[in-house]
Amino acid sequence: MKRIYLDNAATTKPRSEVIEAMLPYQTEKYGNPSSLHSMGREAAEAMEESRATIAKHLGSKPEEIYFVASGTEANNTVLKGVAFQKKKGHIITQTTEHDCVINATKWLGSQGFDITFLDVDDKGVVHEDTLREAMRDDTILVSIMAANNEIGTIQAINRLGAIAHEGKALFHTDAVQAFGKMPLSLENIDFLSASAHKLYGPRGVGFLFKRDGVWITPLLHGGGHERGLRSSTENVAGIVGFAKATELAFAEMGSEAAREIALRDSLIKGVLEIKDSWLNGHPTNRLPNNANFGFRFIEGEGLVLRLDLKGIEASTGSACSSKNLRPSHVLTSMGLKAEDAHGSLRLTLGRESTKADMDYVLEMLPGVVESLRAMSPLTE
Amino acid sequence: MKRIYLDNAATTKPRSEVIEAMLPYQTEKYGNPSSLHSMGREAAEAMEESRATIAKHLGSKPEEIYFVASGTEANNTVLKGVAFQKKKGHIITQTTEHDCVINATKWLGSQGFDITFLDVDDKGVVHEDTLREAMRDDTILVSIMAANNEIGTIQAINRLGAIAHEGKALFHTDAVQAFGKMPLSLENIDFLSASAHKLYGPRGVGFLFKRDGVWITPLLHGGGHERGLRSSTENVAGIVGFAKATELAFAEMGSEAAREIALRDSLIKGVLEIKDSWLNGHPTNRLPNNANFGFRFIEGEGLVLRLDLKGIEASTGSACSSKNLRPSHVLTSMGLKAEDAHGSLRLTLGRESTKADMDYVLEMLPGVVESLRAMSPLTE
Repeated sequence: MKRIYLDNAATTKPRSEVIEAMLPYQTEKYGNPSSLHSMGREAAEAMEESRATIAKHLGSKPEEIYFVASGTEANNTVLKGVAFQKKKGHIITQTTEHDCVINATKWLGSQGFDITFLDVDDKGVVHEDTLREAMRDDTILVSIMAANNEIGTIQAINRLGAIAHEGKALFHTDAVQAFGKMPLSLENIDFLSASAHKLYGPRGVGFLFKRDGVWITPLLHGGGHERGLRSSTENVAGIVGFAKATELAFAEMGSEAAREIALRDSLIKGVLEIKDSWLNGHPTNRLPNNANFGFRFIEGEGLVLRLDLKGIEASTGSACSSKNLRPSHVLTSMGLKAEDAHGSLRLTLGRESTKADMDYVLEMLPGVVESLRAMSPLTE
Repeated sequence: MKRIYLDNAATTKPRSEVIEAMLPYQTEKYGNPSSLHSMGREAAEAMEESRATIAKHLGSKPEEIYFVASGTEANNTVLKGVAFQKKKGHIITQTTEHDCVINATKWLGSQGFDITFLDVDDKGVVHEDTLREAMRDDTILVSIMAANNEIGTIQAINRLGAIAHEGKALFHTDAVQAFGKMPLSLENIDFLSASAHKLYGPRGVGFLFKRDGVWITPLLHGGGHERGLRSSTENVAGIVGFAKATELAFAEMGSEAAREIALRDSLIKGVLEIKDSWLNGHPTNRLPNNANFGFRFIEGEGLVLRLDLKGIEASTGSACSSKNLRPSHVLTSMGLKAEDAHGSLRLTLGRESTKADMDYVLEMLPGVVESLRAMSPLTE
């Protein structure tokens, strides 16, 4: 059966160029970059070239890029690293952040830090005034994601960062979904998190941008790798793959975004013809590849499993929480009732998505929704 | 030029079977194990099979294995996780631990925990009485490595664990160098750390064994992966590769250890014929693949670089600290003077090491040592 993968926000298929770039560092060039001998130095060079490639595309200095294992690690490193460095103070984030930011921040709350979760509007947007009003003299960190993983809503991080900097706070953005999909200015950003596997790179590698001159307590203490911020033998193959994925994503960013927006908008238009359906998130200010729908009277899990039988791979929301049955905290934060938040379907396009895929979804989805509603005790 | 890799304690060459096992999960089977659709479930199955394989060889339950990104992460997770869970108390470790245990423990010391670093004898061994005397009513954790990364000395972790358990302490062992190279009993162990890349597996993946019924504070908060202990999208390809490497290492453990011991002992015998040289670590109770020599009057760095020019890839000690010029804390802990600790050479054999390699080292090394001594201001 034909398989249509529309879960690119969960993870992406590594590009063949990425796999090819990685393979030598998994086989013949297997040196540890910390080793003094030739193969070690060769590995160190490949790693530093990768760092420079990523820095060039992000617009940072190479030494501001720190390789880590994941976006979750990058986010935990910043939140806990700033907190442990400052020892006390007030941390601001917002209600639709990824679970890793929410849960790391809540844990810091249990360790004596003051926490504020900013509200969002019904499109998932954090308003500048909301942040301005929450800022305090002892605010040490503001963390607002660049774009949401479930609903794709883009935040005005440059302006929100400026507000953080009007106070004494540092500003972090979780750009795991945004990096490589949209331009990001570092002007008002002190920390930025990204992950390779959202970008057609390998699993198990991410980076943290940390502005020069800011120091934080390491999350992983050890041999002093990554200039003391993140100890661990470096995953050279993964790092080389991440750089290749970054290079390709930035080269195609404009054209690919335009292509995906056109496909996505045709999908949205078609899906919204289904009765009692709606689009979650912002109508236009959202990631090029993200569509998130609500369907009254049905459960998202049932929808995902039925679509899977038709060869369509989708999600109810965040992959991370797809196995627990609580309604999405992102959707309820925007004001959706629990029963409406349960009926969500996230379709996230990728570079292999085609018009034929959209047509197939639009051919299958109405019948699937109808059959689920026919069985639903919730239907009016 | 012929290249002889004798730095297998720093990292190993991934086996072709490992790369082959990983490739499908880097290409066609790229699902996120948290996704509900078919490809996600297929990835989750591969991950759980890998967990079961590793558990079988370690002798644990599958649900006691938690995948992480590295040995450093596993060690940080245990040390900080126990500390944050218990909130206060006394932690015991010892002076020749890997930098990640030393530095994570020192950091916990700065956060209000009481720390004891046990002394070792001149072979690098922690004596049972030393631990027994250090135990206190408020000791929450004892962390003693299974085998040392620089000198290969093996600790009596089963008996040391029993002493920890006579008190109320939990017992952790860093088995990064030992796992897959020697049998390990979990009888008195609550936590065990391992890493794939020391075992002919990929970089970027490790595991933490955590005994059932013990809970610790997660280091990476987030979406609740790995049963809430370690959030992050799982590195499925890396995990599958780790399981394959484990399976092969355990199948060959006895014969390969015997083969490496014979090669190593012939190497040791030959090297010790060089004047003013000695073996660091225990003469017999050491990892099968480890030889660590001292040479009076010369610097280890110079030795490694000269050997590299002859095609021999070696190390002065830990790869992690090979780029800083302080003498090895492992060697000074055993009582070596700083100038003697500077003249160390670690040769760590691997599955591709041959008798011809040993002969070549024995042919080249005396001349290299002699020429360095001829230039040395330290020579008598």
